[in-house]
Amino acid sequence: MALNVADCDRMIAACEKAGSKLQIGFMRRFDRSFRELKSRIEAGEIGDVVQLRSVTHGPSVPQPWMLDIHKSNGLLAEINSHDIDTLRWYAGSEFAEVYALAGNFRCGEVKKEYPDFYDTLVMTVRFESGAQGCIDGAASVGYGYDARVEVLGTRGILFAGRIEDSTVVAVTKTGGVRRPSVASWRGLFREAYRAEAESFVQAVAADREPEVTGNDGRMAVKIVNAGNRSILERRLVRLNEV
Amino acid sequence: MALNVADCDRMIAACEKAGSKLQIGFMRRFDRSFRELKSRIEAGEIGDVVQLRSVTHGPSVPQPWMLDIHKSNGLLAEINSHDIDTLRWYAGSEFAEVYALAGNFRCGEVKKEYPDFYDTLVMTVRFESGAQGCIDGAASVGYGYDARVEVLGTRGILFAGRIEDSTVVAVTKTGGVRRPSVASWRGLFREAYRAEAESFVQAVAADREPEVTGNDGRMAVKIVNAGNRSILERRLVRLNEV
Amino acid sequence: MALNVADCDRMIAACEKAGSKLQIGFMRRFDRSFRELKSRIEAGEIGDVVQLRSVTHGPSVPQPWMLDIHKSNGLLAEINSHDIDTLRWYAGSEFAEVYALAGNFRCGEVKKEYPDFYDTLVMTVRFESGAQGCIDGAASVGYGYDARVEVLGTRGILFAGRIEDSTVVAVTKTGGVRRPSVASWRGLFREAYRAEAESFVQAVAADREPEVTGNDGRMAVKIVNAGNRSILERRLVRLNEV
Amino acid sequence: MALNVADCDRMIAACEKAGSKLQIGFMRRFDRSFRELKSRIEAGEIGDVVQLRSVTHGPSVPQPWMLDIHKSNGLLAEINSHDIDTLRWYAGSEFAEVYALAGNFRCGEVKKEYPDFYDTLVMTVRFESGAQGCIDGAASVGYGYDARVEVLGTRGILFAGRIEDSTVVAVTKTGGVRRPSVASWRGLFREAYRAEAESFVQAVAADREPEVTGNDGRMAVKIVNAGNRSILERRLVRLNEV
Repeated sequence: MALNVADCDRMIAACEKAGSKLQIGFMRRFDRSFRELKSRIEAGEIGDVVQLRSVTHGPSVPQPWMLDIHKSNGLLAEINSHDIDTLRWYAGSEFAEVYALAGNFRCGEVKKEYPDFYDTLVMTVRFESGAQGCIDGAASVGYGYDARVEVLGTRGILFAGRIEDSTVVAVTKTGGVRRPSVASWRGLFREAYRAEAESFVQAVAADREPEVTGNDGRMAVKIVNAGNRSILERRLVRLNEV
Repeated sequence: MALNVADCDRMIAACEKAGSKLQIGFMRRFDRSFRELKSRIEAGEIGDVVQLRSVTHGPSVPQPWMLDIHKSNGLLAEINSHDIDTLRWYAGSEFAEVYALAGNFRCGEVKKEYPDFYDTLVMTVRFESGAQGCIDGAASVGYGYDARVEVLGTRGILFAGRIEDSTVVAVTKTGGVRRPSVASWRGLFREAYRAEAESFVQAVAADREPEVTGNDGRMAVKIVNAGNRSILERRLVRLNEV
Repeated sequence: MALNVADCDRMIAACEKAGSKLQIGFMRRFDRSFRELKSRIEAGEIGDVVQLRSVTHGPSVPQPWMLDIHKSNGLLAEINSHDIDTLRWYAGSEFAEVYALAGNFRCGEVKKEYPDFYDTLVMTVRFESGAQGCIDGAASVGYGYDARVEVLGTRGILFAGRIEDSTVVAVTKTGGVRRPSVASWRGLFREAYRAEAESFVQAVAADREPEVTGNDGRMAVKIVNAGNRSILERRLVRLNEV
Repeated sequence: MALNVADCDRMIAACEKAGSKLQIGFMRRFDRSFRELKSRIEAGEIGDVVQLRSVTHGPSVPQPWMLDIHKSNGLLAEINSHDIDTLRWYAGSEFAEVYALAGNFRCGEVKKEYPDFYDTLVMTVRFESGAQGCIDGAASVGYGYDARVEVLGTRGILFAGRIEDSTVVAVTKTGGVRRPSVASWRGLFREAYRAEAESFVQAVAADREPEVTGNDGRMAVKIVNAGNRSILERRLVRLNEV
């Protein structure tokens, strides 16, 4: 949405003033499987949410403008803001404290110029509710687009997401049992993008609040900032610090 | 398409005469996974096709008009015509001979009035190419819509289809590891129906042959007739008999 | 067990006379998953059994002694006798009638000398109970050892078996999502072989009937003979013919 | 192995002095799938290891002696010491720094008497190699025994572990697609325990170093201590502090 909370606030205020609807593009909220998981949490199938995990490993080689994380907010913003939103949504609670560690493992050629650049990270979170969570992120993984989530409750666990691109399975002498991997979020979330756009149009038409609001984007930015500070300062960061 | 080949021939002739495009609604040909399987056969990934199997178990309770199979052509037409088309498509060869056996296992209440009605069948086929195939069909299975295919070649095997409706997995104390089953072909083939319609529109616009032709429908009807004769007469039926 | 029923009868009589226990090596009856499926049928989870399917595709190149099916009873005996036993066990009913079709697709070099040799088959069965079944068999498939079963009942369906050899999944740029395939029945049924031997020892120690009897072997031989006759004579064969 | 490193050292020294072999019961090192994953890392299939994750969610209600974590070392020792060992083994590197957060979510009745008791935790680790890792732990989850691992490398990702207890899948009207979950580590690692014992016997017979040494146990204890300190003091803990 933006690089810092102040910019988010200005955007939200401008929309309010103009009477415009603002919807943030967290398309996973419109994905059939991610949505079903949410409704099953709400139906109480696994009791109270206690531990959440979201992984996104992306295939793309980082663009030049991403390399300076002080200007781009890095992988956390580019990819894992989606995981951040998913965790907030499923936890039904705000992030209270984060700890993140990160490294550059696949982009050695930019290390000298951009020593703070990272392509892989783990970030843990303590929610205000007391629940705990973890996000695994990676860019430029090569093997595909891999987005999965798991939510442990007091009475069970729920999983969603997949790495297989279709239902086709091939078994041959030299290849073992093979399924195609998801190449990109574009194909994986094709239906979700459509549903997202439909939802926004309906929100405008019915003059109701969009399903994903400016505040959802603002919170993601705040958490990205906290995570990056944690990475750079190698310490726990409370959300009210940023 | 119709109840007999003569009617198909009239429909095809009428369309030709009128200069209209005729496309048969075998939507599996437009499903991403079924399509990918076809292109991998063609790429030679499993060598020559030697054994094919297609299953469709459907959830729907048979409608009254389906009960007299002499008027409706029964389950073979209603559900398994899709499997027949898939097998022809993947085998790249025509059916030469079929043998089918069938029974009524879940609709006992109609047995007296419709003794020939069947809700479950197995049909084997010998293709002109020498390849062999098998279709499993069932209606009113209750547990969901279950469409799967497997193709054994001289160098490997390919599978497509699924019974799981989403990527959500729940594990709870009493339920084990659970995934939702596909409720209906409507959801399963939503994207395929869209692609099917697009393809037809493009065929009309470009004035080219549709991807699924009247002859594909005609051949399915012929095979349905042969299968039903095999069921009723409890014997192998060659396609050139019907 | 033997090439014909008369030999089976002599073996059974000899064991009875000698007071020896005779157990047939249908190890799938001792496999944890196959056994669990049986107990769930018996618990009524899927209602009455109406359609059964068992597949075995084996990796091995046929040995020279198997090539003359008149002396070896062919693939049906060598591999699919296990599927035959599984279907009898799960159906709780005897085979009444079979139809099989077969071909030689991967062993072209022996076609001239052994024109009746087949490496791939489909066999359908009508059970005395009215249930229907199907067996898919293939030798020398190259891609692994592939044994799977599915049982449709009036209220649901059960599956067992697997083609994946371990829980390891690899995803790499060029390979997609890959799991190792089962290389051989030896590894797949390692635990089952152990349980089978234990069960036999216990049957001897407790002087009780073995879990798999001479009659189970005898019935498999009878069905193999019926299936081979069906293949050679291209017609349905009733079990009381052989 | 013990509650602190000093005790481990005494045990190791005692064994050395007595000329006895000491093998620690990290049975996952002998599990076929976990072992295969290790050998594939070593074969270079995924390049360098950069991000590791190990989950163990256990079904057991904590025993009374576990409740005082100052005497028992808690869940980290009881369950997640296995994950710790797996991560050290796969990373090929020692833990440098940990951060853990934990809570008591399912055992509310002991909160008053044992305020430090936790039944759920997330622990991140920075390895000396620079790699990063994460362990998810939970006791008393009810839904089964759930042990899974994933290892991201510079060229791909590897997964092992499973939550399904057998290959049986049931699909029924009300239950969806269901597989049984693993009830206990006893069944899951049955073969691994056997292989572990065999390996130890062979180490004794051949007078060679056991596959899992006293030092492996000692390092796990050290990491458990670091993790518990991190939980109690809510801060990163370097391994050389404990």
